[in-house]
Amino acid sequence: MPRKPSAGRATTAAIRLDIIDTATAITTLAEQVAGIGGRIRNLATVRRIEGAPPIAEIELEVEGVTEEALVAALEALDDVRTVHLTRALDRVFGKRIIVVGGGAQVAQVALGAVSEADRHNLRGERISVDTIPLVGEENIAAAVRAVADLPRARLLVLAGSIMGGDISVAADELRAVGIPIIALNMVGSITDHVDLVVSDPVQAGTMAVMAVADTATFDLERQRGRRY
Amino acid sequence: MPRKPSAGRATTAAIRLDIIDTATAITTLAEQVAGIGGRIRNLATVRRIEGAPPIAEIELEVEGVTEEALVAALEALDDVRTVHLTRALDRVFGKRIIVVGGGAQVAQVALGAVSEADRHNLRGERISVDTIPLVGEENIAAAVRAVADLPRARLLVLAGSIMGGDISVAADELRAVGIPIIALNMVGSITDHVDLVVSDPVQAGTMAVMAVADTATFDLERQRGRRY
Repeated sequence: MPRKPSAGRATTAAIRLDIIDTATAITTLAEQVAGIGGRIRNLATVRRIEGAPPIAEIELEVEGVTEEALVAALEALDDVRTVHLTRALDRVFGKRIIVVGGGAQVAQVALGAVSEADRHNLRGERISVDTIPLVGEENIAAAVRAVADLPRARLLVLAGSIMGGDISVAADELRAVGIPIIALNMVGSITDHVDLVVSDPVQAGTMAVMAVADTATFDLERQRGRRY
Repeated sequence: MPRKPSAGRATTAAIRLDIIDTATAITTLAEQVAGIGGRIRNLATVRRIEGAPPIAEIELEVEGVTEEALVAALEALDDVRTVHLTRALDRVFGKRIIVVGGGAQVAQVALGAVSEADRHNLRGERISVDTIPLVGEENIAAAVRAVADLPRARLLVLAGSIMGGDISVAADELRAVGIPIIALNMVGSITDHVDLVVSDPVQAGTMAVMAVADTATFDLERQRGRRY
């Protein structure tokens, strides 16, 4: 299966390390990485182990260095306990379709999206379908805004029966940072604030995947504002 | 709806910022955060904007400082362009159930998990269901190992018809870092390397959510090694 880094980007070295969880741990780490010419792109504290001393388990993705150089540089730090190579998350889980809304409809959108992602992933794509069932204007609006903070999120599907108000405001904000939105056909102003409206949830999920897959020919640009 | 930070952890301030993408950007950021007594827990480059100068859009979660102090400290940096408060991702998307395997079965597990998560999220929980359809021993084993690197991942469901070999090795590694696994009943050695085996995919998804929900009484410890 072909695995290519994103176009125009330097290769990313990914490692997981255990480091003593001091106040200066991350600064030391950042200095060491910069010292070998690397740029930290992602740093996630995946687990913390209480104890004396407390340990933080960190997943680190660094651009512009080889994996060997990164491991050597970090193993040289006193506070680093174990280091091992992992695989950058975009090479494993790829592009993310996010589905938010009412449980029954989120599940149907997921059904369509997972089935379609399966077909593209078989041909070398990497597309994940990530979902959360939520109710209430405030919760859904917060989730829509937070999609902008999710690494690798490429498209949002809003699955519900009534959405508007602050959710529509949040939808405009999300589209402004470059993440398109597909909504089910529903009550409320939301359908005027998305790129595409689709009545059938399974088809909405399918189209969402087609819109982000390099292995598909679907062009969301050409469908903008339409309703199916 | 009640929103409580994870037990035993300090509150987390979350912000998104645009910073000029220089070699020393992250070091400067880390020093500034440490200077006000904060600890960076997560840093994700969510988008990069080419240009002169190039900009990196970064989502940052910091423990041990107030949101106001964090915003003030980062706005004081020359290379930081815009700063705005967001919401820590664990407060929006919560605990993550990860579902990996064949498309048809992943979709059915997701159906069960999303429906069950809906019921718990209505009562104040925050549970997401994140999926990727994949085929092949190498791809699936890599995904199983990478679950250890995913922030907020709490449980893995393996949904397929045949898994074993390196996938079983990866399953042991994942459980060793404290992430339990539920597998569908299937061909191969995998069913001897997971915490629970469930034949019906919808039920597997339901049980996965019950196992991580604080609002449920299901105890995976007491079910370990069983098959349903």
